[in-house]
Amino acid sequence: MDRYKIIVAYDGTAYTGWQIQPNGVTIQEHLEAAIHEFTQERTRVHASGRTDQGVHARKQVAHFDLQKSFPYISLHTGLNSLLPADIRILSVQRSDPSFHARRSAKSKEYRYFIWNADVVPPFLRKYRTHVRKKLNAGAMKKAASYLVGMHDFTAFTANPNRMVASNVRKLFELKIMKHGSEIVIIAKGEGFLYKMVRSLAGFLIRVGEGAISPSKAREILLSRKRTARVPTAPPEGLFLWNVCY
Amino acid sequence: MDRYKIIVAYDGTAYTGWQIQPNGVTIQEHLEAAIHEFTQERTRVHASGRTDQGVHARKQVAHFDLQKSFPYISLHTGLNSLLPADIRILSVQRSDPSFHARRSAKSKEYRYFIWNADVVPPFLRKYRTHVRKKLNAGAMKKAASYLVGMHDFTAFTANPNRMVASNVRKLFELKIMKHGSEIVIIAKGEGFLYKMVRSLAGFLIRVGEGAISPSKAREILLSRKRTARVPTAPPEGLFLWNVCY
Repeated sequence: MDRYKIIVAYDGTAYTGWQIQPNGVTIQEHLEAAIHEFTQERTRVHASGRTDQGVHARKQVAHFDLQKSFPYISLHTGLNSLLPADIRILSVQRSDPSFHARRSAKSKEYRYFIWNADVVPPFLRKYRTHVRKKLNAGAMKKAASYLVGMHDFTAFTANPNRMVASNVRKLFELKIMKHGSEIVIIAKGEGFLYKMVRSLAGFLIRVGEGAISPSKAREILLSRKRTARVPTAPPEGLFLWNVCY
Repeated sequence: MDRYKIIVAYDGTAYTGWQIQPNGVTIQEHLEAAIHEFTQERTRVHASGRTDQGVHARKQVAHFDLQKSFPYISLHTGLNSLLPADIRILSVQRSDPSFHARRSAKSKEYRYFIWNADVVPPFLRKYRTHVRKKLNAGAMKKAASYLVGMHDFTAFTANPNRMVASNVRKLFELKIMKHGSEIVIIAKGEGFLYKMVRSLAGFLIRVGEGAISPSKAREILLSRKRTARVPTAPPEGLFLWNVCY
């Protein structure tokens, strides 16, 4: 048995997310079907984490096992030829059997892209969240500074009643970058809760619009309650950017 | 009567081109329908030139006349709200009645984008022509140097028997730029023949692949005959980039 590590990029627009589910087409399903067709083996593809419906990945990492041995170059070319053009395997390598795409991950980076102008260029329409109201990037930066670090992020997850051991996560970095009409939120952390990045983005957009003052970030964090002050920003602006091992 | 000048960007993927035609949906048709719905006036929208099926525009320029007067800001917002997201009006301004989007144009710039690597990132798949074989950008530059200037471009148009007065055109610039896996062909000229940019791109790609030597450009140009040495490159890599007045 060989274990393979793959890096996959996908345009999430047409998919109900990473994980196989009864309704809707998923990235995982396409990958497993392509592997089956190419190798005649049924195997499970494990990602570093799920991405939700409509969320993109620049570099998702996943692993799977095969009984037979395949040269990784033919596996790479063969699988891409069987996958739709909105899912692309960027690299294939054989990995140590102890490697696990989710458990071995040390940190993850997400980027949330906002187009802050009246009109979104048509070529970016599927990859940017459109915010018309002029955002104050300075206020967003200030709010972000309260959120970096080790915190209980219950107020910034979509389903605080989920059965998870703890909602404490370590956010290494939460940066706001602005170039022209584009504002990018860069979030790096050991791990993220369900819809946490989109909740952080939703809150930061409201701060940027002037609806909430930056210092409320601290109060909301300490409340450990999800309220309407933290909306979930739409999926089209979100990219799983990188996974570090 | 007022004349309006608009700048329009569009993703050509879903359209049979700019110009209204019996079969297929066009950009012009969408614009005229939106103007009719917003103003209750039927008017013709004249572009700087047609773009073919699947070709994109970063900045297409067009004009139209309206009997009633409209504030250009409400026209801009109103029309965009009626147009699909893959067609966006970037600006609207009132123009002199003597302005004509096609006849007043002094020059045009097209850019042809090639992705020269094994795998096209999924986010670019509709906006890049995929060429797997490693291209020699130096050879492409050399071939391009023979094509710049005033020439009879019959060998580089798709339909040399068309009823046009002359196939002589002035190409101001034909530049090859390379950044990483991307190769961009920049073509600026007074005017272009039917499928001329895609013919130039098709020829330059063959030169880059090593199938034709750069100096053949001169011979092909002088032959004034379209042959298999000049294939028409696919539309997805082509953008009408700018129109100058």
